[in-house]
Amino acid sequence: MQQQVFFFGDGTAEGDKTRRDLLGGKGAGLAEMTGLGLPVPPGFTISTEACIAFTKDGKYPVGLDDAVAKALTRVEASVGAKFGDPANPLLVSVRSGARASMPGMMDTILNLGLNDATAEGMAKRTSNPRFVYDAYRRFVAMYSDVALGVKKELFEHALEEARARVAKTKGIDTTRINSEELKRKVPDSELPAEELKGLVAAFKAIVEKQTGKAFPTEPKAQLWGAIEAVFGSWMNHRASVYRKMNDIPDSWGTACNVQAMVFGNLGETSATGVAFTRDPSTGEKRLYGEWLPNAQGEDVVAGIRTPMPLSEGPNNEKGAEHESLEKRMPAAHADLVKIADKLESHFHDMQDLEFTIQDGKLYMLQCRSGKRTARAAVRIAVEMAKAGEISKDEAVLRVDAGGLDQLLHPTLDPKAPKRLLARGLAASPGAAQGHIVFSADEAERRAGQGKPVILVRIETSPEDIHGMKAARGVVTARGGMTSHAAVVARGMGKPCVAGSSAIAVNYETQTMAITVYDDNGRPTETVTLKKGDIITLDGSTGSVYEGAVPTVAAALSGEFGELMVWADAGRTMKVRANADTPLDARIARSFGAEGIGLCRTEHMFFEEDRIAAMREMILSDDVSSREKALAKLLPSQREDFVGIFREMAGLPVTIRLLDPPLHEFLPTNEKQIEHLSMIMGVSAAKLEQRTKDLHEFNPMLGHRGVRLAVTYPEIYAMQVRAILEAAVEVAKAGKEVHPEIMIPLAITREELSRMRVIVDKIAEEVFAAGTKVAFSFGTMIELPRAAILAGELAKEAEFFSFGTNDLTQATLGLSRDDAGKFLPAYVEAGVLPKDPFVSLDEAGVGELVKMAVARGRAERPKIKLGICGEHGGDPQSIRFFQKAGLDYVSCSPFRVAVARLAAAQAARLTGQPDDAHKGSGTA
Amino acid sequence: MQQQVFFFGDGTAEGDKTRRDLLGGKGAGLAEMTGLGLPVPPGFTISTEACIAFTKDGKYPVGLDDAVAKALTRVEASVGAKFGDPANPLLVSVRSGARASMPGMMDTILNLGLNDATAEGMAKRTSNPRFVYDAYRRFVAMYSDVALGVKKELFEHALEEARARVAKTKGIDTTRINSEELKRKVPDSELPAEELKGLVAAFKAIVEKQTGKAFPTEPKAQLWGAIEAVFGSWMNHRASVYRKMNDIPDSWGTACNVQAMVFGNLGETSATGVAFTRDPSTGEKRLYGEWLPNAQGEDVVAGIRTPMPLSEGPNNEKGAEHESLEKRMPAAHADLVKIADKLESHFHDMQDLEFTIQDGKLYMLQCRSGKRTARAAVRIAVEMAKAGEISKDEAVLRVDAGGLDQLLHPTLDPKAPKRLLARGLAASPGAAQGHIVFSADEAERRAGQGKPVILVRIETSPEDIHGMKAARGVVTARGGMTSHAAVVARGMGKPCVAGSSAIAVNYETQTMAITVYDDNGRPTETVTLKKGDIITLDGSTGSVYEGAVPTVAAALSGEFGELMVWADAGRTMKVRANADTPLDARIARSFGAEGIGLCRTEHMFFEEDRIAAMREMILSDDVSSREKALAKLLPSQREDFVGIFREMAGLPVTIRLLDPPLHEFLPTNEKQIEHLSMIMGVSAAKLEQRTKDLHEFNPMLGHRGVRLAVTYPEIYAMQVRAILEAAVEVAKAGKEVHPEIMIPLAITREELSRMRVIVDKIAEEVFAAGTKVAFSFGTMIELPRAAILAGELAKEAEFFSFGTNDLTQATLGLSRDDAGKFLPAYVEAGVLPKDPFVSLDEAGVGELVKMAVARGRAERPKIKLGICGEHGGDPQSIRFFQKAGLDYVSCSPFRVAVARLAAAQAARLTGQPDDAHKGSGTA
Repeated sequence: MQQQVFFFGDGTAEGDKTRRDLLGGKGAGLAEMTGLGLPVPPGFTISTEACIAFTKDGKYPVGLDDAVAKALTRVEASVGAKFGDPANPLLVSVRSGARASMPGMMDTILNLGLNDATAEGMAKRTSNPRFVYDAYRRFVAMYSDVALGVKKELFEHALEEARARVAKTKGIDTTRINSEELKRKVPDSELPAEELKGLVAAFKAIVEKQTGKAFPTEPKAQLWGAIEAVFGSWMNHRASVYRKMNDIPDSWGTACNVQAMVFGNLGETSATGVAFTRDPSTGEKRLYGEWLPNAQGEDVVAGIRTPMPLSEGPNNEKGAEHESLEKRMPAAHADLVKIADKLESHFHDMQDLEFTIQDGKLYMLQCRSGKRTARAAVRIAVEMAKAGEISKDEAVLRVDAGGLDQLLHPTLDPKAPKRLLARGLAASPGAAQGHIVFSADEAERRAGQGKPVILVRIETSPEDIHGMKAARGVVTARGGMTSHAAVVARGMGKPCVAGSSAIAVNYETQTMAITVYDDNGRPTETVTLKKGDIITLDGSTGSVYEGAVPTVAAALSGEFGELMVWADAGRTMKVRANADTPLDARIARSFGAEGIGLCRTEHMFFEEDRIAAMREMILSDDVSSREKALAKLLPSQREDFVGIFREMAGLPVTIRLLDPPLHEFLPTNEKQIEHLSMIMGVSAAKLEQRTKDLHEFNPMLGHRGVRLAVTYPEIYAMQVRAILEAAVEVAKAGKEVHPEIMIPLAITREELSRMRVIVDKIAEEVFAAGTKVAFSFGTMIELPRAAILAGELAKEAEFFSFGTNDLTQATLGLSRDDAGKFLPAYVEAGVLPKDPFVSLDEAGVGELVKMAVARGRAERPKIKLGICGEHGGDPQSIRFFQKAGLDYVSCSPFRVAVARLAAAQAARLTGQPDDAHKGSGTA
Repeated sequence: MQQQVFFFGDGTAEGDKTRRDLLGGKGAGLAEMTGLGLPVPPGFTISTEACIAFTKDGKYPVGLDDAVAKALTRVEASVGAKFGDPANPLLVSVRSGARASMPGMMDTILNLGLNDATAEGMAKRTSNPRFVYDAYRRFVAMYSDVALGVKKELFEHALEEARARVAKTKGIDTTRINSEELKRKVPDSELPAEELKGLVAAFKAIVEKQTGKAFPTEPKAQLWGAIEAVFGSWMNHRASVYRKMNDIPDSWGTACNVQAMVFGNLGETSATGVAFTRDPSTGEKRLYGEWLPNAQGEDVVAGIRTPMPLSEGPNNEKGAEHESLEKRMPAAHADLVKIADKLESHFHDMQDLEFTIQDGKLYMLQCRSGKRTARAAVRIAVEMAKAGEISKDEAVLRVDAGGLDQLLHPTLDPKAPKRLLARGLAASPGAAQGHIVFSADEAERRAGQGKPVILVRIETSPEDIHGMKAARGVVTARGGMTSHAAVVARGMGKPCVAGSSAIAVNYETQTMAITVYDDNGRPTETVTLKKGDIITLDGSTGSVYEGAVPTVAAALSGEFGELMVWADAGRTMKVRANADTPLDARIARSFGAEGIGLCRTEHMFFEEDRIAAMREMILSDDVSSREKALAKLLPSQREDFVGIFREMAGLPVTIRLLDPPLHEFLPTNEKQIEHLSMIMGVSAAKLEQRTKDLHEFNPMLGHRGVRLAVTYPEIYAMQVRAILEAAVEVAKAGKEVHPEIMIPLAITREELSRMRVIVDKIAEEVFAAGTKVAFSFGTMIELPRAAILAGELAKEAEFFSFGTNDLTQATLGLSRDDAGKFLPAYVEAGVLPKDPFVSLDEAGVGELVKMAVARGRAERPKIKLGICGEHGGDPQSIRFFQKAGLDYVSCSPFRVAVARLAAAQAARLTGQPDDAHKGSGTA
């Protein structure tokens, strides 16, 4: 086994930043800072390999004992104090530090090395017994919690008794106030040394009672107990689940850092704080952070005292309790600024720093890449690339593509106070607020008066489209991710929360009753809102809030545009958009879409003036009546395509022929059926019968897609005619058109060859007039059988488009509309590593995709391969599609920029090891 | 190229029965019979290779012309007549003959060689111009139909005019009768020679008008036209579709047989007929068949004249028009009996023969294996094996396993007249008749009075179980193959027609209105039936008939038992049954089941006294209330298992834990909800809310199977406890128990490992009392992801059971409950080669099965592999499972015998070429 313990201190370090695998992020940072000559308290790092050996064998590897002892001796020499020496004791901190930062693992034990003897000696030496016993009681509590498994809460009662005693001395009547008030009236900083000393004894007694063993007094025993706690925490449940979710292998292990203590709580010339080398929310280059005088590290995070700003600034609040470090300790602040600059240009990235000032002297305790907002990430990456700090490729890789979504929709102001009323599905991203209305007509009317409205419906139907257009956002009580409301709202780029089952809408009284749940899922109260009340919805998280919560508008700064140009330069997969209307197509093109990968034709039939003809077609008893009804749809369908082809001139447009089952087009309530019966001259009974006939138990697996066209070929014939006539019309006007006709839900070659016959016949008829347009013919791969039989299908299809939504549903046997009830819990519990509708299930669905790619290409080497499921906008899935060798991805217009960046990163990363990009955290 | 034309005649033949590939079935039979010295008119066979060459190149292979000419010369020499010689013309028949008999191909042209000159000459020579011109006009019609594409119907008008002329001479007023009456009053046999001669001319004129060419008069041209028609018919659409459905490769081709004519219509000493060497419906060894005096072959089939029995027998009808050949022509009959015996013992199988008697002399025109009923097949195979004619293995292979089903359920008497009222899904096989009742209580009451009843419901629910038990059969207007009615009826082995949407049930008036459709799917009338009316249903075909149609009871004769013993001797796969109750288990064991492959536990909760506790569980808000409700279910669930374990002592029992979504257990109509609300003390509003919450858009892909147990582990915990406590109880009573606990719908290893933890904990608790029972733990493979991740699942699972019903649904994206609307048409049109729920889709689903077998065994070499979908009872699928290497198949109790035989055949056939067993037709 190689070296297991790495010393750092006195300007030299045995490790450095290149040994992150072995030293973890924290250890590598400490070693690197030491090597750079920065003021770092000496210490040593026990390697991740030692952790792995310990996990596997249940004991420490040979030689570790010795190596730790030697390193400890060097620390003692450097500090000039001795571990366990009552006269001049060395105290240390023990912290875990894996390659990537990970919640759920043991974090920190401070002040290790204290026992009654060393505390007594230290109190004498510092003449500050209050400081020493405060540190001691904190150490006992922390150590008991993380290394002995005794919960902190158990110490609370002893603390409260101490506070009460002090309160009495101040004349406070403790019988009339509760614990929280007592804590405020007697802050821990006012507990005198004697009380703190008493607490140490009380805490130890509690530990002995709980564990059956005395608290360890021997510093070496304390140290090994802490090391074992760090290593053991690698395999605890929460950490395991987190790793599984984030694809971090168990074999990485964690390192353990042991470092000489410095104290920020030695008095008013001591302090502790955290700093960012840039503003993590805007990316602006300035020292940003918080500090507390006379405090230890944990106090900044604990939130008992309010931290103060590091630097002077126009937005700082007034008053001594808001004073900046720059003003209070200018020299230490100047040192910190210098160090921050040095570290940022050394690491070529924005750094997140921890520091402590002891008696006016600055010490660095940690440095790592800082988390940042998407906006800041873009600005930092672009500025650093322009400054020559990093390459443009590196800049492209620095930005989390998924986070870009934040920049493309309005978002809730994270600082604004808000009250959550209900949760539902995050059906269409973005935030919006407005007055509640319960009908589409009302929405249109009020919006016409200039009022912002939110349309709330039990569920929406094609009759509600005008109201959805008029509203700022849509909320439904029922329906899933592919419900009418969700699909239409996404198409419109309008925020939507769907299927929020806690909401009970009453159209009669024009009110909605919301059952509000607490964090544990228990109902607490019912809130009733009426028409005109204001709510805010966040379609990115599926939340509905009370009143108007301020939002932050989307802003594409100049840096964003620059970054996208660099990104596109190295991209190999095309990015198309899913768009059903000329407007969507225009938006998509403005976001850089290079074609339409999925133009759904069914939504075209939901428009009010068309659905009547569609219904007539469905209710027809024979081919000729169906053809008559379809003929009425032809002109408007052709117009749709003309508009889309114009917008996408020069780019390919993949049009999927009718996909959903016919019952989706029929009215569902009695009134609508009556109305339809009247205008169509068909008895309501017949209408109801037909609706019943068409009902399906599992519509997802029903009579839809190409199956409709096998039964009623005339439907696709009309659609193909509309496509090709539109293409000819636009081509005649001098624009380039590239129609791609796509057949949904095929599972056999025979289905495709039948459709090909129809397409060729119509093409011959349309082109007979003289103008010909080149087009291609292909299919979706959206069922497992299609993937397995891809070689057969490729005999007919010139392109495949993977419909990964349906493919996921079928492969996992998971209905996306229904899974909302249990899938989130499944993912949270780690039963599934992630939501397979968000990130492609690579082990399952991904294997079918790879199989279809291989078989399709074997049969037809030049086959064009793309994907048009919502995974087309998910960065992790995009990386998979790059590796699988697809030609393009297609996603919703508002995700095009995300997909472009993700595809650009995927192109640069493919071939690199899987974890190459892990750990450069962005918020 | 090898020899293309094979002569037979005068006691020698160039081919024989071993050259079936080259000569087709018919050609090989003719050659073999000739070689045996039987009286076969001379002729020759053009090989299948010539057909393939012609199909590929569009022209005849080199040398064929010559070879045909030479063979023709030999035929002329043998007969002593010359092709096209007006003085003494040779006439021939031309027939196709592939390896396997195939509908849709050109069949026969008789009397080829006739033209005006040869007809004239022949009329003189035979002094029988009526015979000659009758043959001539038949030839023109047949040839025009099959070789020139002129439909027979076009000649009908000319024929009718001729009949009318003859009618007038008889004084019949033709203006007052229709065509059918005219045909009856003037049969074709009464058309005089002159009229027939006129018809020849009229027919030829029609042909010329239709084709633009004169009818060919040159006999050689006629011959080559007929050969081309035979070869061309190999590739026609109907034949292609048939081949695809029956896995017959295009590359087989068809042979073409040209044979000298003999005439059964030369007068009263001539005849034609068909014969079986045994009775094809019972298998009894006696000459069986029909004949017609003074007739040509086609007349027997055409049905214009009623054929007469071959042999004397007690059941023969009286009268000259029913006289037997044995009586009328004893010498020819005796010859035929001798020949039949000779052929049967030569071919070692029951033969289907065609013969013609010309002027008292018998000629053989065809011999082939005869189609037979399942009952006959069993008797023939066993009798032949016992007589040493064939081996026992051959006997086992001779019987069509699928056909055995006929023997295991009552079936409709095929000879009984019946009127079809409605069709639905063939949900549970068997036939039954009885009085209509519309409620379960009524069913029970009337059945209690000894009346046979058929329960008709819109759909059934758990409340109807007692009525289903009491009824002879069940009909529902709604619901699919996995609806409550279908599943429960199959479990009970009771006939059921489900989802018959033409039936509108009115509970108020206690009537049902049936829309009756004609063969073209057009509604013709509405039949209204009331309570007490009698109907008959056939659950094997999904048909409902008016009144009482007689049925034939199932009878397992002694031969059947013998055959099964021979079958089992060579079988390698085990056969288990799907059984949910002790009674089912007993029935299954009586049919020879070697274990239970699927014991569904959900039906146990539908019993009236249990569903209340089940609903209480579902409506509970927390774990402890759920556990309380489950505790009520534990004793009855345990009793169920005790009963099953007792019945299956010594054999394995695979128990699937709860699978369906919870909403299936909740009441659906208002009255039931009210009732439940009352007895449970829960508000109806809450009940409705819970029902709404549980509603799923696609329940097939919803919150079911192991997903329920991830959310509510206490459900499976109760079930596992019931299983293991029952096992302990039965083991203590001295019986051997082998429980196998099966987890449904798993797609991740994590799901299984969580369930394993529950199982092990419960096992520890149950076994703590002292008695331990060995059990195994496994999972179903019923979703594509499970098949793909089989290696992962095998880390936890000790066995896999393929749930091929669900696996088919997910892989093909086909809901079995909904597909009834379009799947039959899909299969008929050849879009899918066969119903994938009947025979496994080997190319799609089969590939997933093979993948899972390979990956499961790679991870755990001793993993036990079985299949429990309904494919477990389908012979073709069973052959696939044998090849895939499964350890067992499991099917419904009534299919166990079928599966045993099919598995026995599969074991013998695996390794043999795919077509080894084709063509030994059984009906």
